[in-house]
Amino acid sequence: MYQIGVDIGGTNIKIGLVDDQLNIVRRSSIPFPHLDGAAVAAQIAAECRRLTEAQGCGMEAVDSVGVIVPGSIDPTGAVVLNAYNLGFHNVPLRAQLQEAFGGTPVFLANDADGAGLAELGRGAFVGCQTAVLFTLGTGVGGGLILGGKMFSGGKKQGVELGHMPLVAGGEACTCGNKGCIEAYCSATAIARDGVRAMEAHPDSLLAARAGGDPKAVDAKLVIDCAKEGDPAAKAVFDAFIDHLGSACIAMIHLLDPEVIAIGGGVCGAGEFLFEPLRKNVDAKCFFSDHAKIVPAVMGNDAGMIGAAMLSRNA
Amino acid sequence: MYQIGVDIGGTNIKIGLVDDQLNIVRRSSIPFPHLDGAAVAAQIAAECRRLTEAQGCGMEAVDSVGVIVPGSIDPTGAVVLNAYNLGFHNVPLRAQLQEAFGGTPVFLANDADGAGLAELGRGAFVGCQTAVLFTLGTGVGGGLILGGKMFSGGKKQGVELGHMPLVAGGEACTCGNKGCIEAYCSATAIARDGVRAMEAHPDSLLAARAGGDPKAVDAKLVIDCAKEGDPAAKAVFDAFIDHLGSACIAMIHLLDPEVIAIGGGVCGAGEFLFEPLRKNVDAKCFFSDHAKIVPAVMGNDAGMIGAAMLSRNA
Repeated sequence: MYQIGVDIGGTNIKIGLVDDQLNIVRRSSIPFPHLDGAAVAAQIAAECRRLTEAQGCGMEAVDSVGVIVPGSIDPTGAVVLNAYNLGFHNVPLRAQLQEAFGGTPVFLANDADGAGLAELGRGAFVGCQTAVLFTLGTGVGGGLILGGKMFSGGKKQGVELGHMPLVAGGEACTCGNKGCIEAYCSATAIARDGVRAMEAHPDSLLAARAGGDPKAVDAKLVIDCAKEGDPAAKAVFDAFIDHLGSACIAMIHLLDPEVIAIGGGVCGAGEFLFEPLRKNVDAKCFFSDHAKIVPAVMGNDAGMIGAAMLSRNA
Repeated sequence: MYQIGVDIGGTNIKIGLVDDQLNIVRRSSIPFPHLDGAAVAAQIAAECRRLTEAQGCGMEAVDSVGVIVPGSIDPTGAVVLNAYNLGFHNVPLRAQLQEAFGGTPVFLANDADGAGLAELGRGAFVGCQTAVLFTLGTGVGGGLILGGKMFSGGKKQGVELGHMPLVAGGEACTCGNKGCIEAYCSATAIARDGVRAMEAHPDSLLAARAGGDPKAVDAKLVIDCAKEGDPAAKAVFDAFIDHLGSACIAMIHLLDPEVIAIGGGVCGAGEFLFEPLRKNVDAKCFFSDHAKIVPAVMGNDAGMIGAAMLSRNA
């Protein structure tokens, strides 16, 4: 039997037909139609039928459909509470999908949870009982594996690890609080500090590369300039590593996980990031033996694979 | 059948004979002898025999003995790695106790874990699947309930929630890091900030009560003066509440627990503490519905009851 994993994003809906070894045997992508939940559900179901027909098996070879969305889900796993990029607010998407799919059971989850589940199935968390995923992007998302399963919060309201205080009272966060992990460890935070560094050091490589334009400063530029030895950019990068190390320490001292995986575009920096990060964590850690800190490996397929795994996690 | 719970402290060893409803039906206390592990184990076993004889049942009515110590335990639950107050370092205490107790199975755990377990058995966490205990004292300890059981870390190295970064880079902590929860939320932290407030405000009620003597400033004095409206003490207390609220938010946004319980002497402040703490957490929380924040209820018997529960948690 196959499972179908559907990764709904604000631009595209990615659909994968996934086998028992978690390989995507056939895939498809359709534009996100910006319609209501029922219409979106109908388009997804139609595309899934085409996909299984192309595979020569039909929907009767699919025993479950998992769908992830970039937003918050209600504790029963039925309603998308808020998915801003989709324009979905209090949308009963599971019922709408179930209607569109007929008898095949449908599961719904948050994209960060799906990413953690994909790492558990085929990535950095294989065999783990306790693991933490940080996804560093515009914000900081993540997933938690506890007891060898995806954990969606004790009251099933989700895991918001980007909004744990890291420097309580510090930098303003998009959530309205001050000093969240997201306000220090996101790509957005690196860019913010890069702009400040450029303004404080107009003669820096960073300032030259950006042509003095704050809009030209993003996390990649800061990291590239740090790699080339620019002191202004390096100071921003070092502060980022120190904060990310503290975020890892929060997880280690609380949960003592086997693995911490870090994903998102910033990880393109590779060992330039991971080597100083591991040193930073070693220096702060209590335990003689602590979590391995590794890159997340599932990349763009994480959503489809995690979604396809929702039935087995349930 | 009964279980015996033993709470080893640097001053006394408390022993309770505990029934299936987790009532302590008979109790005893002996001075901690400051001897080696084997000698301490022998004294504990001898006192347990006296206790069961006094109950008229003998050790054959006891199906397990649980022992908690104020220190770190190795991942197998056999060796006390470091218990500074006991002078125990790498002491194979479980084997020594097992030798002294003969056939009755012996379990060993950290005191913070025992306290969390006691709340689960008979206190603030009854019926919970996910819960967090903060114990505020000289340091900040705590326990974690996950999946309805005591959680001792993914790699069984313990839960060190007092050493999660809260204001990364902030106040020095005893552990060598900067800005741990312990450095902001312990009774010691309140006293430290009380001394600073007294020195900055020599005309304050706090300064008058302490007679200008830093040694006279402890958490209780700061809280008492805050209650009486002293602005200097109130500012210290308000900052403490804000930090403790942020520590609660870290737990809520990560684990979304059903209950957060707060124990330790500081909680003697009662609603003077809990009412502003709940308001602080409400204001910072993402979720429409979040963990109840309540006082820990097990008090001085927590150690014995938690210890007696170790066999059923295993």
